[in-house]
Amino acid sequence: MKNYILHDEWKIVEDGFHPEFNEITESLLSLGNGRMGQRGNFEEKFSGKSLQGNYIAGVWFPDKTRVGWWKNGYPNYFAKVINSTNWVGIDVEIDGEELDLNTSEVLNFYRFLDMKTGVLERYSTVRLLNGKEIEIRSKRFCSIADDHAGVIEYSLIPKNFSGKVKITPYLDGSIKNRDANYEETFWEEIAKETSYGQGVLHIKTKENRFKTERFDLVSAMKVDVWHEGKAIEFETLPIKKEKYVGCEISLDLKQDEKTTIYKYVANLSSLDYSAEVLVSETKNYVEKVAAKGFETLQQEHADKWADKWEHCDIEVAGDVAAQQGIRFNIFQLLQTYTGEDARFNIGPKGFTGEKYGGVTYWDTEAYCIPFYLSTSEQKVGRNLLVYRHNHLQKAIENAQKLGFSDGAALYPMVTMNGEECHNEWEITFEEIHRNGAIAYGIYDYINYTGDKKYLVEFGLDVLIGISRFWAQRVNWSSDKQKYVMLGVTGPNEYENNVNNNWYTNYIAVWCLKYTLQSIEEGSKIDANRVNEILSNLNFDWEKETEKWNHIIENMYFPYDPEREVFLQQDGFLDKELLSVSDIAQHRPINQKWSWDRILRSCFIKQADVLQGMYFFEDDFTETELRRNFDFYEPMTVHESSLSPCVHVIHAARLGKKEKAYEMYLRTSRLDLDDYNNDTEDGLHITSMAGTWLSVVKGFGGMRVKDNQLHFSPFLPEQWQIL
Amino acid sequence: MKNYILHDEWKIVEDGFHPEFNEITESLLSLGNGRMGQRGNFEEKFSGKSLQGNYIAGVWFPDKTRVGWWKNGYPNYFAKVINSTNWVGIDVEIDGEELDLNTSEVLNFYRFLDMKTGVLERYSTVRLLNGKEIEIRSKRFCSIADDHAGVIEYSLIPKNFSGKVKITPYLDGSIKNRDANYEETFWEEIAKETSYGQGVLHIKTKENRFKTERFDLVSAMKVDVWHEGKAIEFETLPIKKEKYVGCEISLDLKQDEKTTIYKYVANLSSLDYSAEVLVSETKNYVEKVAAKGFETLQQEHADKWADKWEHCDIEVAGDVAAQQGIRFNIFQLLQTYTGEDARFNIGPKGFTGEKYGGVTYWDTEAYCIPFYLSTSEQKVGRNLLVYRHNHLQKAIENAQKLGFSDGAALYPMVTMNGEECHNEWEITFEEIHRNGAIAYGIYDYINYTGDKKYLVEFGLDVLIGISRFWAQRVNWSSDKQKYVMLGVTGPNEYENNVNNNWYTNYIAVWCLKYTLQSIEEGSKIDANRVNEILSNLNFDWEKETEKWNHIIENMYFPYDPEREVFLQQDGFLDKELLSVSDIAQHRPINQKWSWDRILRSCFIKQADVLQGMYFFEDDFTETELRRNFDFYEPMTVHESSLSPCVHVIHAARLGKKEKAYEMYLRTSRLDLDDYNNDTEDGLHITSMAGTWLSVVKGFGGMRVKDNQLHFSPFLPEQWQIL
Repeated sequence: MKNYILHDEWKIVEDGFHPEFNEITESLLSLGNGRMGQRGNFEEKFSGKSLQGNYIAGVWFPDKTRVGWWKNGYPNYFAKVINSTNWVGIDVEIDGEELDLNTSEVLNFYRFLDMKTGVLERYSTVRLLNGKEIEIRSKRFCSIADDHAGVIEYSLIPKNFSGKVKITPYLDGSIKNRDANYEETFWEEIAKETSYGQGVLHIKTKENRFKTERFDLVSAMKVDVWHEGKAIEFETLPIKKEKYVGCEISLDLKQDEKTTIYKYVANLSSLDYSAEVLVSETKNYVEKVAAKGFETLQQEHADKWADKWEHCDIEVAGDVAAQQGIRFNIFQLLQTYTGEDARFNIGPKGFTGEKYGGVTYWDTEAYCIPFYLSTSEQKVGRNLLVYRHNHLQKAIENAQKLGFSDGAALYPMVTMNGEECHNEWEITFEEIHRNGAIAYGIYDYINYTGDKKYLVEFGLDVLIGISRFWAQRVNWSSDKQKYVMLGVTGPNEYENNVNNNWYTNYIAVWCLKYTLQSIEEGSKIDANRVNEILSNLNFDWEKETEKWNHIIENMYFPYDPEREVFLQQDGFLDKELLSVSDIAQHRPINQKWSWDRILRSCFIKQADVLQGMYFFEDDFTETELRRNFDFYEPMTVHESSLSPCVHVIHAARLGKKEKAYEMYLRTSRLDLDDYNNDTEDGLHITSMAGTWLSVVKGFGGMRVKDNQLHFSPFLPEQWQIL
Repeated sequence: MKNYILHDEWKIVEDGFHPEFNEITESLLSLGNGRMGQRGNFEEKFSGKSLQGNYIAGVWFPDKTRVGWWKNGYPNYFAKVINSTNWVGIDVEIDGEELDLNTSEVLNFYRFLDMKTGVLERYSTVRLLNGKEIEIRSKRFCSIADDHAGVIEYSLIPKNFSGKVKITPYLDGSIKNRDANYEETFWEEIAKETSYGQGVLHIKTKENRFKTERFDLVSAMKVDVWHEGKAIEFETLPIKKEKYVGCEISLDLKQDEKTTIYKYVANLSSLDYSAEVLVSETKNYVEKVAAKGFETLQQEHADKWADKWEHCDIEVAGDVAAQQGIRFNIFQLLQTYTGEDARFNIGPKGFTGEKYGGVTYWDTEAYCIPFYLSTSEQKVGRNLLVYRHNHLQKAIENAQKLGFSDGAALYPMVTMNGEECHNEWEITFEEIHRNGAIAYGIYDYINYTGDKKYLVEFGLDVLIGISRFWAQRVNWSSDKQKYVMLGVTGPNEYENNVNNNWYTNYIAVWCLKYTLQSIEEGSKIDANRVNEILSNLNFDWEKETEKWNHIIENMYFPYDPEREVFLQQDGFLDKELLSVSDIAQHRPINQKWSWDRILRSCFIKQADVLQGMYFFEDDFTETELRRNFDFYEPMTVHESSLSPCVHVIHAARLGKKEKAYEMYLRTSRLDLDDYNNDTEDGLHITSMAGTWLSVVKGFGGMRVKDNQLHFSPFLPEQWQIL
């Protein structure tokens, strides 16, 4: 845990330079606007610890799968959002020496991300090896008003000299992914041009062995130079290198006088423009934003942010750290996904790092959708559903690869474009509860918005595909005289390949029921359309619904009649039932124990019985919840950042205030305090939605039932107002 | 299945060239002498399908682990027996054209491996693109009399011309492993020299990131040239390239006259000689063998083989294919391991290919040891046990990595030097029954040889380490009021991470009993030594034996009281119990089904309940065996080549003659007929021991009980004599 980030209600502040934590700070100071995003890298060269990261939503590359022991059905590639053109770069050379905060003496340093306005600012004075002292002031943002644009205001003030300075704003496409499986690079250059204060770089993802879609990315920059508040004329020397274009500007800087570079950048891709017009559109775009000027752009950007905050701010009084934590989570979630485009989704790290490849997990449906439903326009949540609807055919093909038929759909564990990208059999093939979460997302959206029409527009075919999967995935146990589901991995990934995971069995039956009910609901809205859907899907009403109902009525759920708790899976009671407090010195077990030891222990990564009781809370009495909570909570190590929020919500419902607050603290500042020593890889974006749920559904007790908002709030003792 | 290999009682014959099957033939014609071995590659260049392979026992390299998702406890490297200097190469250039059977017209072709004498011969006439016709005759062997030596007699007879021919015998260390994880090469050159008809190449395994032991390999060749039966003088042009040394010999060949190259090679490694003397010793060695001359060497080699066959031949009358098959298996097993050196063991492919890295599996103890006990001197089996004894400390460290303590030992799943090299959690960490097989190997050896002294020499500490592991690996189930063993993979690898695998539970309890009994037996032989061993191991007699006895008395074994069969594992009866005949069109399921489908099906790769009843047959009545056989046999797909032999032995005991013969046919000519389409990767060496068991323990009904050989033979109808 680290404490170098200042507590502030609206800002993420680093006061004094912490180069040893620079990659963490880069993650924390990430910017995004739903269409692109980037880590908080310095504009100028930095030879210290840094993970360069600029990402464009929906632009990916099929990185060749790395696997030890191949299994039938494994995907050939992992589609990952890739590092793209570095457009923030501005190299500075003073008297022949490169400005580099790693080699210079940093005299003062202050940088912050203003969450209210979405701007990253930096103020620093440094002394170079050659003795020259210079002040740097920089501001930048990814505009949410003009979401293809990024803008930088970069000022230099010589403190103890006057003299020649070379400043080179550039666009650099010769970037790598640190996580590339075989150290491959993913981009090739198509074209570049540069002229007075301008540069254009056109790169394209490489042709690849998997013959997947390729993406063109054109970045254009326009540079203005101001001196003491006035635009000035300047000379530029064009610099061209492989996948790189720069404008070298030589200036005579005067001591104590401020020279400012405005760098306007547009990043347009073939996702939105055809190849023929891509370059010209990008040039037009950058011209348009440059014409507005920095001030106007910043104001429009800030206005948009003000509007967002108007609708989704959470205020906490009496606890600045908590206030900062919750706002940081909201801010990052809103930066990551804006719902403008149903081709995009939410990667576990958003635009803040490479880990997990920027792909979509069940996190979206289980944790993120409720956040966007409550904080954003309806279309935002809806587009997240449409994303899955658009992948239905691929989910059907995915199920076919695993031996399913007749329109059964298995959504991938992780995906970019609907193709499964994961390759661990116990997850890829067996962590099938994700299918249930996707159905639950539809339920959640309709419950919140009342938009039942969604069913006949996009919902029903997804629900039917999912239900068909479940109906084929269970089998009749002659021994139990029940349906069973063998060989699954539940949300608690510290058990693999188990039989009758309670959560998975439960959500499977729920899916079947909800689908039947949705067909009925849909028919009330538009019977013809429903008939058309069923007919398109070759739905055999009698046979399929008979089977579904038979499963609904005869599913097996592991249960302990003695303790009166649902059992996580068959055989759970054969384990040595210990408490997390018994293994204090062994934690985190995922770092200290071998996998077999984790698997045969009772310890739980995230408690899936409790996850199920959260999704379907109305199905259970408070007594039932209490028994199960008291049974599973002590065995839960919460080594998934998605785990504690469910415990907060249950603990709140059960009046366990201290437990609720204790659990809340685990995630509220997970990244700000680098709780898990991994913030340098990027932020835990999807678990931020979990933290939001803790506050809103936990402390706030907010529910939507029968088209009405319900609250059952309690205030943690540490807070004055929520 | 392929049928191009001629049926012959003593020879493996390819009559007419089958370039499309060349890699298969190379596997089948592999030579070895326990210390080195090689695939049946051509001497001269061959541009068609070929897998070059020359291997030196015990010479390995740590190939960096390839893994998709890392787990704690995974090894960093896979120690594999690597391709080493190609010493068979003789390039031939005729009138400027390289002799290459892939580009020449093959006018006739006949090659065979004579199993009686261990010599590979080839007779072929080819027409080059330039119209020159030439006859090639070659003979070679890896001497088992001088086991560092390989010898080649290579003759050329021009058929339609007289003229200049360049012949270049060489040693080439610039080889690769086709299976190298990151396409790395493993050797670097140390030195080379060449002079009149001689060449020396010294290579060394590269320094590596894992800082493992490095190996020096020196190969020396001496070349003689004969013309029409007489040695002649010749000139040599030395050829030196990176990791390569050759002697180019230009000769005037006369039409219809035979010119012969004798190439004598010695391969000595730092396993046997110190670095200082390695080069000189290798030169001496090659001088010594060259001085003997080809005829003498071949006679000494053949005499040794005659001696081996004298003790282990199996004769089958009435079925040439079966006779060839069983002799091929015996021949290859004897080529692979000679028991001269306790540092060596038996890789699944022996010296015939790269697959599985040449490392040791439980195959050795479960299948190979009985073969060597019955066919070879006592020291051969004994050295296989000593190999494990020498790795005990590493097995203890391996167990520590997984959280075990107090001297518990877990032998690796696959290993070269005692280090675990496998990296699939469900196998590496969970397929722990291997520990039981290693104890069983000790039992088997002592039962066969009567050498109880082995216990106090090397056996007891291994048995105690293994038993300590089991005592820690089980846990008390409050629910069952029994000991259980959670999270294991049995020999049936088509189930992963199951609870209470019957076989594993059974062999664990057997280990505990056998260890207690062995301590007692050992004490009768040498009580002082046993006390010393126990004291060295800090054996807490009271506490440990009390625990062991408690486990022995209270172990849980899954059982179906209705069918009266042992259950493979908990939950087995929840499966849909089908028969292999129900899924004819789906086989082999490991190629046609995704892993999850295999896992939740009832289908069995190799039936581990039946494996247990084979090891411990005296513990069960024939009725019990019959019930279990009839239950599991129909579900067994035998997709492990180690599976059918156990079924042969049981079927023989149960009087199921047809079933026994049907199962026997599956493995008897597995490689000769390329039954599984994978012989090109190398031969199934360890499963050859299984086939031998089928004949000897199955059809022959041979057992060793109370120091006596017992037979209960039956003759398959298709045979006249066994």
